[in-house]
Amino acid sequence: MRYTLFGESHGPAIGVVLQGVPPGLDMDMGFIASEMARRAPGASALTSPRSEKDAVRVLSGVFEGKTCGTPLCGIIENTDTRPRDYAGTRWLARPGHADFTAHVRCKGFEDYRGGGHFSGRLTAPMVFAGAVAKLALRGRGIEIFARIASVAGITDAPADLAAPDAACLRRAQGSAFPVLDETRGGAMRQAILKARAEGDSVGGSIQCFVLGIPAGLGGPDFDESVESLIARHVFSIPAVKALGFGAGTDLASLRGSQANDPFVPSEAGPATSTNNNGGINGGITNGMPVVFTVTVKPTPSIAREQDTVDMRSGQAARISVSGRHDPCIVPRAVPVVEAAAALAISELPGVLA
Amino acid sequence: MRYTLFGESHGPAIGVVLQGVPPGLDMDMGFIASEMARRAPGASALTSPRSEKDAVRVLSGVFEGKTCGTPLCGIIENTDTRPRDYAGTRWLARPGHADFTAHVRCKGFEDYRGGGHFSGRLTAPMVFAGAVAKLALRGRGIEIFARIASVAGITDAPADLAAPDAACLRRAQGSAFPVLDETRGGAMRQAILKARAEGDSVGGSIQCFVLGIPAGLGGPDFDESVESLIARHVFSIPAVKALGFGAGTDLASLRGSQANDPFVPSEAGPATSTNNNGGINGGITNGMPVVFTVTVKPTPSIAREQDTVDMRSGQAARISVSGRHDPCIVPRAVPVVEAAAALAISELPGVLA
Amino acid sequence: MRYTLFGESHGPAIGVVLQGVPPGLDMDMGFIASEMARRAPGASALTSPRSEKDAVRVLSGVFEGKTCGTPLCGIIENTDTRPRDYAGTRWLARPGHADFTAHVRCKGFEDYRGGGHFSGRLTAPMVFAGAVAKLALRGRGIEIFARIASVAGITDAPADLAAPDAACLRRAQGSAFPVLDETRGGAMRQAILKARAEGDSVGGSIQCFVLGIPAGLGGPDFDESVESLIARHVFSIPAVKALGFGAGTDLASLRGSQANDPFVPSEAGPATSTNNNGGINGGITNGMPVVFTVTVKPTPSIAREQDTVDMRSGQAARISVSGRHDPCIVPRAVPVVEAAAALAISELPGVLA
Amino acid sequence: MRYTLFGESHGPAIGVVLQGVPPGLDMDMGFIASEMARRAPGASALTSPRSEKDAVRVLSGVFEGKTCGTPLCGIIENTDTRPRDYAGTRWLARPGHADFTAHVRCKGFEDYRGGGHFSGRLTAPMVFAGAVAKLALRGRGIEIFARIASVAGITDAPADLAAPDAACLRRAQGSAFPVLDETRGGAMRQAILKARAEGDSVGGSIQCFVLGIPAGLGGPDFDESVESLIARHVFSIPAVKALGFGAGTDLASLRGSQANDPFVPSEAGPATSTNNNGGINGGITNGMPVVFTVTVKPTPSIAREQDTVDMRSGQAARISVSGRHDPCIVPRAVPVVEAAAALAISELPGVLA
Repeated sequence: MRYTLFGESHGPAIGVVLQGVPPGLDMDMGFIASEMARRAPGASALTSPRSEKDAVRVLSGVFEGKTCGTPLCGIIENTDTRPRDYAGTRWLARPGHADFTAHVRCKGFEDYRGGGHFSGRLTAPMVFAGAVAKLALRGRGIEIFARIASVAGITDAPADLAAPDAACLRRAQGSAFPVLDETRGGAMRQAILKARAEGDSVGGSIQCFVLGIPAGLGGPDFDESVESLIARHVFSIPAVKALGFGAGTDLASLRGSQANDPFVPSEAGPATSTNNNGGINGGITNGMPVVFTVTVKPTPSIAREQDTVDMRSGQAARISVSGRHDPCIVPRAVPVVEAAAALAISELPGVLA
Repeated sequence: MRYTLFGESHGPAIGVVLQGVPPGLDMDMGFIASEMARRAPGASALTSPRSEKDAVRVLSGVFEGKTCGTPLCGIIENTDTRPRDYAGTRWLARPGHADFTAHVRCKGFEDYRGGGHFSGRLTAPMVFAGAVAKLALRGRGIEIFARIASVAGITDAPADLAAPDAACLRRAQGSAFPVLDETRGGAMRQAILKARAEGDSVGGSIQCFVLGIPAGLGGPDFDESVESLIARHVFSIPAVKALGFGAGTDLASLRGSQANDPFVPSEAGPATSTNNNGGINGGITNGMPVVFTVTVKPTPSIAREQDTVDMRSGQAARISVSGRHDPCIVPRAVPVVEAAAALAISELPGVLA
Repeated sequence: MRYTLFGESHGPAIGVVLQGVPPGLDMDMGFIASEMARRAPGASALTSPRSEKDAVRVLSGVFEGKTCGTPLCGIIENTDTRPRDYAGTRWLARPGHADFTAHVRCKGFEDYRGGGHFSGRLTAPMVFAGAVAKLALRGRGIEIFARIASVAGITDAPADLAAPDAACLRRAQGSAFPVLDETRGGAMRQAILKARAEGDSVGGSIQCFVLGIPAGLGGPDFDESVESLIARHVFSIPAVKALGFGAGTDLASLRGSQANDPFVPSEAGPATSTNNNGGINGGITNGMPVVFTVTVKPTPSIAREQDTVDMRSGQAARISVSGRHDPCIVPRAVPVVEAAAALAISELPGVLA
Repeated sequence: MRYTLFGESHGPAIGVVLQGVPPGLDMDMGFIASEMARRAPGASALTSPRSEKDAVRVLSGVFEGKTCGTPLCGIIENTDTRPRDYAGTRWLARPGHADFTAHVRCKGFEDYRGGGHFSGRLTAPMVFAGAVAKLALRGRGIEIFARIASVAGITDAPADLAAPDAACLRRAQGSAFPVLDETRGGAMRQAILKARAEGDSVGGSIQCFVLGIPAGLGGPDFDESVESLIARHVFSIPAVKALGFGAGTDLASLRGSQANDPFVPSEAGPATSTNNNGGINGGITNGMPVVFTVTVKPTPSIAREQDTVDMRSGQAARISVSGRHDPCIVPRAVPVVEAAAALAISELPGVLA
């Protein structure tokens, strides 16, 4: 399964084309709507008040409620694009945003309104595509769960990478602020509200678990490692700036005797007693949960004034990005990370065949 | 430029085919040999005593000392493959290695000797390919430097991500143990020798700088982000388990006002005064140095006895991986990371055209 | 530039996503509409009376009338999908159609109405995509012309492959029945009407010229030959069953001394005095017009009764495909072949960069 | 399975890397050698006396006589590259050859000796790759046979496209001049010898049959049609200039009632009583033999003097390509066409999985 995103934040519509969808998949529109709702803004005081219905219209690839196996296109009309005055900031590159790079890349022909094609809004069709991938994977016994691992330096409770508690993960997944430890979650929310009150934003991290994935997927070509594949998808999410598998960056200070995951017999064949390698050896799944953690940078849109440059004049300027921005996009990014994982795993040869 | 690696550690030869090499490139065989030497084992007491000449024989794509623009194949004959007795460990999956996953992936037909296709030895043709890519990029004013950022929890001196000192990086590159701060490097070497003495190994991290890269490269398709591209290549290096751009995982605990890189005017157009985003906004280069850090796990081959499973019988067993292994592959991985970066950047549309 | 078609004949909409469109291209909607009109049915007594407006709605990738360089999605709503009774023929595989193969490929989940995804109707978004490609190529001085080369065994006047008359080709292109020799065109039309009167259909061939294409495009990888690229695109057109470059199948009975195109000096460098190789040597353009001819099979939908099989019961049956079918799709296929050529040429590295 | 060819005619070696080879395939080196021998020159008075042993050395991907599933590289050392004097013809573009186009494409850095990378000699590793693909397909019950369909306008006996005689095809395959009708084959050989005596060459055509291929392969993406896939591979063979499926170009003058292949019940499901569509409807296999015919142009190397241009001076010149050239490459191209078919079919998703 492969996907192609299209659309601009304030253009007529955004959407996605999915190729390689297996035929006969039941399009559970209730599940899809619930996935879209997890990402949609406006769910709580913590998120942007922008009202995005994010109702997906399926244009192709589905017949009588089931996938045909032909390219599946879903679009979301952009209804909340009230005309606003961009005149004041048209040429001011917002720090941390893609305004300047899009301007260079598109040679000045970019749709600059609201970030255009490079808006976080494009994660909506990504979640739709991920929902279809999840439906396909579920039929193969593969499930994907992500949770907030940290916000503003406050960490959630650790999970057992070798034997994560699926029930807890599922419970977290059903929450608007998916953490394992609600007390720590409360502290994170406080930190978010504090940052907002100060005209600022905070970042965090998300940990993702792929359960039920069989051994032997990925490779043998080096750039087809499961890590490479997941990384390609995960780094297509705006704001994701780091990715680690298993114990991730902690592996830098471990010794081999600590980091190696010893093999132990199990009914299903060799398993490992720890999972510092995140379910992947030599770029190939080993049958343990595939686990990875991504770092989400703080929302670049902040009310505080920042230095910038006027792209037309080249002169120094100041900018304050007022308006309806999320002080922390980590909660809304959780389903996006799951979607990227689902899309990556669905692309692995042999998973959906 | 794209590359395809082939070969097994103890097969006839390992090698690589490079496609998309620009014609007319001067094949500086001295430079290539020096790059190969940086990765080769045996350079010091810290590395494996295995004698690998790693002399590359170019089979195609070069004529009268210059690239033709046709597929370029380079091979390295495996000369140091003395017959050894694998009988004792044939079926024992080494923890942290790809023995088990390769066994499943290849359905039992893998060349198991020395890790076969999944051996770190395959990084030799990767370095060769990277050397060709570096030669091509050098002609476009792009240079790539990596250095050891940490070993066993001991960190090298920090670098200025927005204005790294190219002279220092070049000096480090010329050393067998490339760090910015020699004192800290000495401490790292002590930690490596201590681990070896204890039959163990240590991990670390490597920071890579791409200098001279213009703004506007990458995207606009989401899975063509510069982060996605570099990640795909970097995660094809065995033992790399994490990757962060710019400030990387530190971004999780920063605020937007700290993490955003303010734009400032410069002669060459808008620049940023900090570089927490690692030279990339919205998946597109912004003209600042592209900076990323990778985590290299500790060498999985250790003399200490570990738990494992006999893949044939499914029974528990014990294994001690004796022999000529590196207690820390971080130093030798430095040119491999540079190679992956060079190959990734060379693949970006518009760089070599 | 690459394209992905989606949609089913009687689904909500059909469309295409174009990636790699250069930014700043003027979206000449008048030109695009005229291209769509060339393919649309109902233009004359010779074509299907089905009323397809084929108005393209551009959802993304265009801002203020110019392409952004981001993925460009255009859709055509399916308005003329009046509910009809497929009950009688649902399980009867129409000979020459994809009913049976789609049924196997999609495991019974295909949208069978009117051919679904495999309908010739999908050539409408292909023509839209081709129109965008033509606009991009025009800016590089490359123009594409196709004409009916034969219908029902009646051939149009031959063209000089080495020096085709662009004015004549342009005049033909403006006509609903694009031939060089109007007298022969009249005979072709008679043959079409005769076949229709007899409840039958006829096939034909189309010759396509790419003018203004520079030397040195294509290759050097063998499956990146210009012939391979054009072939991949041309054979994605339903009903195209053969393709020949330059003198095509005539080369089988020529001698080398006749077939070789002798080089002659010209102001622009070496040219050839004949063009039997269709502007391509060794898979690379030689600067002469790229010329190829495709064979379009007779419309498989015919009123005459034919043998078939009921796909559910496996029993023999008889079918007569009544209704609004074209007795000859060659005229309407002319802009589709041009579109395929434009899309293929646009995909060649170096053409649009 | 995908392949990448590399090498130059007079460089150190030519070869191929095959990716996606299924593990556990028995590398029947006797079969592979016999396939190489079918393509090799020197087999008869009709072919070039150049002595090419074409012994393949397998460098990777094979262990203990079986494929590992890892990239498989095979090389052929160029031993018969005796130093010759190219000084006289270095700058003369041979008509019908890639000398001029390679010169432009490679910006003057091409290895010009003997056609370099664009030499027909590169079909040797293609045949090797095809032999591996044939071994893989044979395990799935798929067999591929090609035969000379015509030479110099003399046609072989027609075959029944819907029910080709496998025994006859197998017998032809074992012959140095594979035709169904030996009498016509004799006439073809006379025509070849006559052309050679006159310092000239002749072309011809080859018909290829893929037997045992199941229904439902290919698509549904338009540029993934089976015709597109086969075409991409077949047009990567030097000298192939036309390709038709089933009845091919004859379809242009047939009526629908003649061209449509009526479905008839069979034990294995719907079959067709004729096979004018060459086993493909809507780009998807229908379970009938996949049949296609390619046109091979006459050998461009001829002793007769031809007009050309000196690429350095731009001046008109005359050239006579003396030496060891085949007056007709059709017989030697038969196994190459089979190889291209095998490689194309092996690339179809679902065939080897």
